[in-house]
Amino acid sequence: MIFSDNISGVKPSAIREIFKVLGDPTIISLAGGNPDPSTFPADKMSVIATELLTNNPSAALQYGVTEGYSPLREQLAERMEKKFGIKREGNTVLVVTGGQQGIDLTTKILCNPGDTVICEEPSFIGALNCFRTYGTKLRGIPMEEDGINISELEKALKEEKRAKLIYLIPTFQNPMGVTMSAEKRKKVYDLAVKYGVTVLEDNPYGELRFSGEDILPIKALDDKGVVVYCGSFSKVLSPGIRIGFVSAPEEIAKKLVVAKQVTDVHTNIFWQMLISAFLEKYDIDEHISSIKALYKTKCDCITSALDKYIPSNRFWRSSPEGGIFIYCRFFGEDAGELSKKLIEKKVAVVPGTAFQTDENAKTEYVRLNYSMPTCENIERGIKIIGEYLNGKH
Amino acid sequence: MIFSDNISGVKPSAIREIFKVLGDPTIISLAGGNPDPSTFPADKMSVIATELLTNNPSAALQYGVTEGYSPLREQLAERMEKKFGIKREGNTVLVVTGGQQGIDLTTKILCNPGDTVICEEPSFIGALNCFRTYGTKLRGIPMEEDGINISELEKALKEEKRAKLIYLIPTFQNPMGVTMSAEKRKKVYDLAVKYGVTVLEDNPYGELRFSGEDILPIKALDDKGVVVYCGSFSKVLSPGIRIGFVSAPEEIAKKLVVAKQVTDVHTNIFWQMLISAFLEKYDIDEHISSIKALYKTKCDCITSALDKYIPSNRFWRSSPEGGIFIYCRFFGEDAGELSKKLIEKKVAVVPGTAFQTDENAKTEYVRLNYSMPTCENIERGIKIIGEYLNGKH
Repeated sequence: MIFSDNISGVKPSAIREIFKVLGDPTIISLAGGNPDPSTFPADKMSVIATELLTNNPSAALQYGVTEGYSPLREQLAERMEKKFGIKREGNTVLVVTGGQQGIDLTTKILCNPGDTVICEEPSFIGALNCFRTYGTKLRGIPMEEDGINISELEKALKEEKRAKLIYLIPTFQNPMGVTMSAEKRKKVYDLAVKYGVTVLEDNPYGELRFSGEDILPIKALDDKGVVVYCGSFSKVLSPGIRIGFVSAPEEIAKKLVVAKQVTDVHTNIFWQMLISAFLEKYDIDEHISSIKALYKTKCDCITSALDKYIPSNRFWRSSPEGGIFIYCRFFGEDAGELSKKLIEKKVAVVPGTAFQTDENAKTEYVRLNYSMPTCENIERGIKIIGEYLNGKH
Repeated sequence: MIFSDNISGVKPSAIREIFKVLGDPTIISLAGGNPDPSTFPADKMSVIATELLTNNPSAALQYGVTEGYSPLREQLAERMEKKFGIKREGNTVLVVTGGQQGIDLTTKILCNPGDTVICEEPSFIGALNCFRTYGTKLRGIPMEEDGINISELEKALKEEKRAKLIYLIPTFQNPMGVTMSAEKRKKVYDLAVKYGVTVLEDNPYGELRFSGEDILPIKALDDKGVVVYCGSFSKVLSPGIRIGFVSAPEEIAKKLVVAKQVTDVHTNIFWQMLISAFLEKYDIDEHISSIKALYKTKCDCITSALDKYIPSNRFWRSSPEGGIFIYCRFFGEDAGELSKKLIEKKVAVVPGTAFQTDENAKTEYVRLNYSMPTCENIERGIKIIGEYLNGKH
């Protein structure tokens, strides 16, 4: 069987190999990216599900339009404007099948094989693999604790004659957990305009700030129509329902609709209507507050366990103010080796290699997730990591 | 804004222009492809939805695996074997986000720009537009009342050196409503094997036979692993939930999973679990029987109205034994003109141009749908068409 050029280059991701062992219930997983299931508002959803299927089954189960359920699109536009300063004028809101589809469709409509996607280094593996399936070249820009290195970004924009996209997760970045400063956001935006390259701003964790001050997304600056913004309900309501959304300049949105039409026709209409009713009936900000409180506690658990069990001269960690990930550098360790050893000790982590544009380059970094495991398991897991590192020396 | 080469060539479809006027409630629509909403088993779904969200919310709302919910995959494999003779050995069943995603992912993993997709002429616009977004060349093969013209198919396979896919809807074809004979299915299969081209068999209507004898899908012949089979719950349970499935040779299925992972991660897990429970708890064949009875009645309505209101020397129509579409040729009419005139008279139909590889070629054919309108509206709509045609002469 001869596969297409674009798909032939993409390997099943390293991260999936790790996930295979997670069926073992004795393993403490700090490897995933799942929200804590206790945050799913299942009771409220159940009430609405019954209402929908009783009072409005014809609409909730019939074909919908590709753009998304109109009342939900309206609610999303309003919420994004109020909460994130994203202007309605000049932008179109579309509902997509999870944030991942927003990334996929944007790449599909903008990138030819051989075009360059500039991204943070490290970055979200699902996005990197998506870009790879379009035959694009990835150009990684080193990350700092306040976001992407701006002079390296400008250098890349100068050098990459076929740059089409700058992919960024400015807030509580995956895998690092760090947040790009407001100053850098402005600089990134100005560079995108200057070089005529579209910004793909991915913001799945942006509502989950548990300390520090909110920073508006890059999209809030977008007078010129160069930013495609992807949001998602995965981390605030449920990931299993696959409901994300996009705010894109009108011209881009039109093409996204054409691409979505032939990809999956439209997004699950039942869940679009359910979320619309949820936003109408309940206070989602109150719901999100409770998630933030939980993740603050869990983040405190993981940072204090790291600081307790691992000598400070042996590692560096990021200091997340929100989101679900923390990034650690274990000095002198090979992350790939380390993660294999830790699996033997029943702790799963993701080596930083998974998030690199070059998955073969060695790294000392490891991504840890604190949203899914209990505080007890976080403490046990980090203790095992500490014992392993200390035992080696 | 410069868009990718693949998407630049794709126009918003003609069919969508027609659909825009359908908001007008005074228009009788014979243009859609929607199932009758009275066939949605909403009460039963509501019972299961409550159970799932009460007893198993963590699983029903959490991330799932890309391949699909295991119990559902098992049920589908069993059902496809029992009902359609599709062998389990050598094939992998995947759950996808509607049948459309099966088409999209298969094209993505197999076709490079410039490759040829051989298809029935006319064929499903959603598939044709999907193929267009991969920069493929479309080669249409004339249709006959018992399916594709086999000698034209072989001629195309000889001529098209870069043929990668043969796309077929063998049963109750969209738009024609006709069914490929068992003999032709065998010949198509043998040709696909001989020329080393993959068959993409799309079967969204295959369960909806209301007269005549069932014919096994081409996939049932697939010893050699050259057929990708796409099925869907859209026409038997609900289209709005976007649940389809694929049975593909293992090697192909592995690549489909890689492609799906970066497209939408996985299909809505809540609805996968709900359908799994539905299949467990209720008799889906009994449910499908009631749909078939309804569509038989509606098909009888449309055929007798056509035969009553339009002189037999003025038109030809297909004779569907199942599915939701009937195809008509109005001698001497330009279908594009006709459909515009009929909109003025408050009847919507789809001109055959929409289903052609060359949308600019004139045609006398028109697609009519009988699943969605009531029998009363079918009769009224066809009467208007008849009056218009008779009034012209």
